[in-house]
Amino acid sequence: MKCRKCGGRAVLELRRHNTAFCGPDFVTFFRHHVLETVRRWRMFTTDESVLVAVSGGKDSLALWDVLHEGGYRTTGLYIDLGIFDYSRASKARCEAFAAERGLPLRVVAVAEEMGAAIPAVRDATRRPTCSACGLSKRYIMNRAALEGGFPVVATGHNLDDEAATLFGSTLRWDESALARQMPVLGATHAKLARRVKPLFRMSERETAAYAFLRGIDYIVEECPFARGATSIMHKELLNRLEDTSPGSKAMFLQGFLDKARGLFQEREPVVLMECVRCGQTTTGEICAFCKLRDQVKRAMRPTERTAAAVDLPSTEDPPSARGLISDFHAASEIHAP
Amino acid sequence: MKCRKCGGRAVLELRRHNTAFCGPDFVTFFRHHVLETVRRWRMFTTDESVLVAVSGGKDSLALWDVLHEGGYRTTGLYIDLGIFDYSRASKARCEAFAAERGLPLRVVAVAEEMGAAIPAVRDATRRPTCSACGLSKRYIMNRAALEGGFPVVATGHNLDDEAATLFGSTLRWDESALARQMPVLGATHAKLARRVKPLFRMSERETAAYAFLRGIDYIVEECPFARGATSIMHKELLNRLEDTSPGSKAMFLQGFLDKARGLFQEREPVVLMECVRCGQTTTGEICAFCKLRDQVKRAMRPTERTAAAVDLPSTEDPPSARGLISDFHAASEIHAP
Repeated sequence: MKCRKCGGRAVLELRRHNTAFCGPDFVTFFRHHVLETVRRWRMFTTDESVLVAVSGGKDSLALWDVLHEGGYRTTGLYIDLGIFDYSRASKARCEAFAAERGLPLRVVAVAEEMGAAIPAVRDATRRPTCSACGLSKRYIMNRAALEGGFPVVATGHNLDDEAATLFGSTLRWDESALARQMPVLGATHAKLARRVKPLFRMSERETAAYAFLRGIDYIVEECPFARGATSIMHKELLNRLEDTSPGSKAMFLQGFLDKARGLFQEREPVVLMECVRCGQTTTGEICAFCKLRDQVKRAMRPTERTAAAVDLPSTEDPPSARGLISDFHAASEIHAP
Repeated sequence: MKCRKCGGRAVLELRRHNTAFCGPDFVTFFRHHVLETVRRWRMFTTDESVLVAVSGGKDSLALWDVLHEGGYRTTGLYIDLGIFDYSRASKARCEAFAAERGLPLRVVAVAEEMGAAIPAVRDATRRPTCSACGLSKRYIMNRAALEGGFPVVATGHNLDDEAATLFGSTLRWDESALARQMPVLGATHAKLARRVKPLFRMSERETAAYAFLRGIDYIVEECPFARGATSIMHKELLNRLEDTSPGSKAMFLQGFLDKARGLFQEREPVVLMECVRCGQTTTGEICAFCKLRDQVKRAMRPTERTAAAVDLPSTEDPPSARGLISDFHAASEIHAP
């Protein structure tokens, strides 16, 4: 198979685009698409400072790489979830990435903000772990952006992530979730930073290929708590559709944005106020993060509280955190002729 | 496992309802739900004559049985597609069902209306077979209703059928298809009969169990031309969701009807006229059925035309029509304790 651009040997076939590329031309193709997405959706300009939320995985580090190489002013934000070895390894990847490029990286630990790391939050609440973790990340991202003077936070959500989220919301016909499914969430309050997803048109496989070809050292393992998550099953179902009919995921997501998103609205008009505890935005008196922090505080005995906050060494890892899963196939695939 | 109603031995577990029934109580449960659907959606009254489109399969014969036993005035309509042994066997099931109950059955052959049976139509057009066949069935159903003085046609579409159709339309965000996804399609023109789907809340497995428990002799094989159809893959994907989370299909379909259907509208307002050839409704000058008939006529040589119209014996069956597929599992399942 030949590269569509230069006629040289292709390393990656993109069935949904009915094309193939050599390594360098794929890197160019990928960057072009991401930067075009940033411009077309008016995500941010070169005058703005962008806070890039990085997890140490392929998507967010690929995003940071593209934005930095594209001439944007970027700062990384690593949120330390305190999930044992998984968090230690992913933090190290972010620090190495930033150090190699001389880019600033901010680190905020959930344990400091919440009083306990995610494993203890998991034990303290009946809320699904991914939900409590997502809430914490969104809260910390926004606060870090406000405190650091960043008007915009960019996250590494890719096409597969966005299509799976849309799939879940559509199965439930969750009007509020459908109304919010956008690659750009504008700042609707002075205390909200704009949130953007510049990779929403790039598939997980494409993002993995980019990170690999750019020699980015990223963490391949998935979060041990994500195992069995509904979103993973939804991704598998969408992958089956994509195998049979390449382009299905993009058609599903883009078709929604073009034809249906505008039809859905938040069930109740949202009036944002400031949390009486922390000053961040909320629809009630106390924000969801502060409520969760209270819940965690109540559930923990004093001795546990100290231990959880300092993130004990890996001898304390629960069985579910050992033997992390890997779902990475792309790195080997892209070398196939 | 015990019957929720009588405490006797259950033969069928309904995970999505978190319940189980013995045979007789399941039959009562099934009938109650279907007849309640007919009333709640105002599909038809006992004063109206209902034309029940029957294929010889479990769904349409179960529907006919429920409506007949429920005191409705029913006449069967069998559309002979001329698909070799498959059609011969399914027609025999419908005739036996009607004869046993002393109910009227009308038979219309596609070959007579179209000038060729479905296998020849398949060869004569580039349109997918299921699409040409669906068009022919809708056309014949409506004409038979009008000519016979039936205000309403009932079809055996079940929850799985409807959820799979909705799934396909949602993947494409096909606004017109989404706007038309309803269990009752009203007569929007004097030459259109109302179309209703009284089984849309009953799953395929439930319908199969009802037909089995009622001793209905139905055809288990699927149409040989349906193999590999996209709708079958969509059903498989929805079945995986249902296995993990019972009730998913019903939630998806009912959620759509409750919260989203009203948001979608036909892309262009439809103005119905009468076809200059046959007088049936169309949005153009000549209706899609007459156009397809012309196409079939042009494609066939004179000798073939005679042969196709009389539906040659099974020695002429193409390889794809031999070794019919069966997807029926429920009959054995329902005997599990």
